[in-house]
Amino acid sequence: MNRTFALKGDIIFSQTPQTLAVHPSHYAVCEDGICVGVFTQLPKQFAEIPVMDHSGKLIIPGLTDLHAHAPQYAFRSLGMDLELLDWLNAQTFPQEARYQDLDYACRAYSIFVDDLRRSATTRAALFGTLHVPATHILMQMLEESGLETFVGKVNMDRNSPDVLCEADAQSSLEATRIWLAGCQDLKHCLPILTPRFLPSCTDALMEGLHRLQQETGLPVQSHLSENQGEIAWVRELCPEARGYGDAYDRFGMFGGCPTIMAHCVWSDAEERARMKQNGVFIAHCPQSNINLSSGAAPARTYLDEGMHIGLGSDIAGGTHLSILRAMADAVQSSKLRWRLLDQSLSPITLPEAFWMGTRGGGAFFGKVGAFEAGFAFDAVVLDDSDLPSPLDLTPEERLTRIIYLSDDRAVIHKYVDGRKLF
Amino acid sequence: MNRTFALKGDIIFSQTPQTLAVHPSHYAVCEDGICVGVFTQLPKQFAEIPVMDHSGKLIIPGLTDLHAHAPQYAFRSLGMDLELLDWLNAQTFPQEARYQDLDYACRAYSIFVDDLRRSATTRAALFGTLHVPATHILMQMLEESGLETFVGKVNMDRNSPDVLCEADAQSSLEATRIWLAGCQDLKHCLPILTPRFLPSCTDALMEGLHRLQQETGLPVQSHLSENQGEIAWVRELCPEARGYGDAYDRFGMFGGCPTIMAHCVWSDAEERARMKQNGVFIAHCPQSNINLSSGAAPARTYLDEGMHIGLGSDIAGGTHLSILRAMADAVQSSKLRWRLLDQSLSPITLPEAFWMGTRGGGAFFGKVGAFEAGFAFDAVVLDDSDLPSPLDLTPEERLTRIIYLSDDRAVIHKYVDGRKLF
Repeated sequence: MNRTFALKGDIIFSQTPQTLAVHPSHYAVCEDGICVGVFTQLPKQFAEIPVMDHSGKLIIPGLTDLHAHAPQYAFRSLGMDLELLDWLNAQTFPQEARYQDLDYACRAYSIFVDDLRRSATTRAALFGTLHVPATHILMQMLEESGLETFVGKVNMDRNSPDVLCEADAQSSLEATRIWLAGCQDLKHCLPILTPRFLPSCTDALMEGLHRLQQETGLPVQSHLSENQGEIAWVRELCPEARGYGDAYDRFGMFGGCPTIMAHCVWSDAEERARMKQNGVFIAHCPQSNINLSSGAAPARTYLDEGMHIGLGSDIAGGTHLSILRAMADAVQSSKLRWRLLDQSLSPITLPEAFWMGTRGGGAFFGKVGAFEAGFAFDAVVLDDSDLPSPLDLTPEERLTRIIYLSDDRAVIHKYVDGRKLF
Repeated sequence: MNRTFALKGDIIFSQTPQTLAVHPSHYAVCEDGICVGVFTQLPKQFAEIPVMDHSGKLIIPGLTDLHAHAPQYAFRSLGMDLELLDWLNAQTFPQEARYQDLDYACRAYSIFVDDLRRSATTRAALFGTLHVPATHILMQMLEESGLETFVGKVNMDRNSPDVLCEADAQSSLEATRIWLAGCQDLKHCLPILTPRFLPSCTDALMEGLHRLQQETGLPVQSHLSENQGEIAWVRELCPEARGYGDAYDRFGMFGGCPTIMAHCVWSDAEERARMKQNGVFIAHCPQSNINLSSGAAPARTYLDEGMHIGLGSDIAGGTHLSILRAMADAVQSSKLRWRLLDQSLSPITLPEAFWMGTRGGGAFFGKVGAFEAGFAFDAVVLDDSDLPSPLDLTPEERLTRIIYLSDDRAVIHKYVDGRKLF
């Protein structure tokens, strides 16, 4: 596949969390999958490369979903009148148990992968289930989708129902090694170690996963400080820890390697400082935090403190796979937080939400999320012609409308690492 | 047009705010535009009427939008980083001033009416602008759309910019009479008196509108207790009033005739009691209240106290015209309110949100919003086939998914008062 070409259109990307670079009718040049830059005219040395002319369309970087549960896509939006721990027991665990059935896994995961492929998302960090064969099926589908993803076989050996619980740490770790052995040939869908969350992993399992991480160098993802009931439970389970983050840190599973912690709704100053020190990425999942009545994470604080933060759909705590929707949700949840809880933290602006959904989360994958020289060429072409307006709109205003109004309907072309998906 | 027929499909409507009537593969019978009921088999006396077979599709009552600003549809989603009073001055008033230009009004209103017609909404109460000719254009388009609507020429004679302010009470009232004279032949789009909100109407204007209401018997719509800065301003403007609602009531413009007050985010017990006593309808606009950082109205209180409450899109404080989206927003905003502000008020459930968007708001228009005998036959046929699932879903679960996931994309047929729109 030719990975050297240019896209012409109205190009927008984040320069900083507060500022958008807006280049109407410019060329974004891709050379061997890497972005060379954005130009008013095609530079001489690229005069001969193919140009895809999307004049009048918006071109933005591919979006990044830092947290979603692929098996939960099947029941998104159902059973949302519960809080986290009740929702896990009543809805999530029985549904995830279905993935022991490989026919079901094939049907459910093919719907998920199709929708993720059609969305504006180019990269994602995903949870599977504890099942090794079903997780391999998901990863094979993602490998073939053209997306760049991390997927974790979930580890959980306590406080879970019999239908969805590994027998003990040893069997969970053995299953993990078998799973990893089956991932050897994958190039675009890579494994990530995934202890479900602290309450569902014994000390022995956390210790074993730490050793496995040290041995393999794999990245890690889990959940942190999402819900107040959950946090109280962690305090009971780990009375010696100084908090939820510290409980992970005592096992060496809180950064130091590429690590995503989802939610961080209630992280206190000490936990935040530890996250920053250890380079932990925060997956901010505003819609899920609303649906499960968890709260609204202090994204303003995370931005101001210069922490790593991106957006997550958190399917199926979140109902929408779209990271465009997650951007609007991030703004809206921060406004209610400001109004109802804490007026010292000003609401998130739309450029800041866009930054989180592109560069913020993109940094987990390397140089990703902007049309700057040296960045991976992930691009999405957006057609807003189904949103007629009597006004003359700037490219920035058109992007705003797509974020608020169109979910993923506007996505007409997508490139990942310079490979055209459609 | 034949207004006697039956629709076959999976029929759902609200029986009470808490309970849904679910009738899979049933017939909803319409006789001369009025619902006869829902039946497992077609009753003998209707054996010969046409049957539209929508087996496998959902059929719900038409939805009701109790509050939207038609002229603001043009700039929905833009400039959302401001609170109410700043947003009015920076964004709304200059945009509404454009409707002096009838070419612009035609272009803008035709987009609005097209989208409203395609949506799941069958009835709406709308604000125009202060301009008489532009408001007539809007009303003529709506009259021809097949929808049942109320539209108000807006009254505003103080605290507004020169480009969007009537000279004085007398000229505002004269313009209103001219506007009403031009509405005589309309049957489906009817006038509603519309003082913008108390800060933009002089005492003389409010008194004149009261006299006009008494003379004509017309319904009334306005805004109430939306934003804390606005409420403080009303207190300054009307120091003698016991609150915002009382300030309207002193002019006889707070119920007693069919009246909608939009928002009611911060209404206290006294204001609520007055609304209940006077039969005022609350237009609950959760998305707007989030976008403009106004807060989250205590919809739980309004439901528990048995008040009249429906949903409003509040275009363009709200960005989405869809009342399906407003249902999901009502649930979500009540969850953050519960979590962050007041755990004495339990979150709104999805059936309650559905009730508000159908029967709750429908009651403003008469017997509207359910498939019960004697109700106006407003119906929407929904196709959820673009939301594939590996699960066997109940009709209620399918409706839940459409509410959360599909906005108005699922709407394939619509009937108003037994008239087929498409």
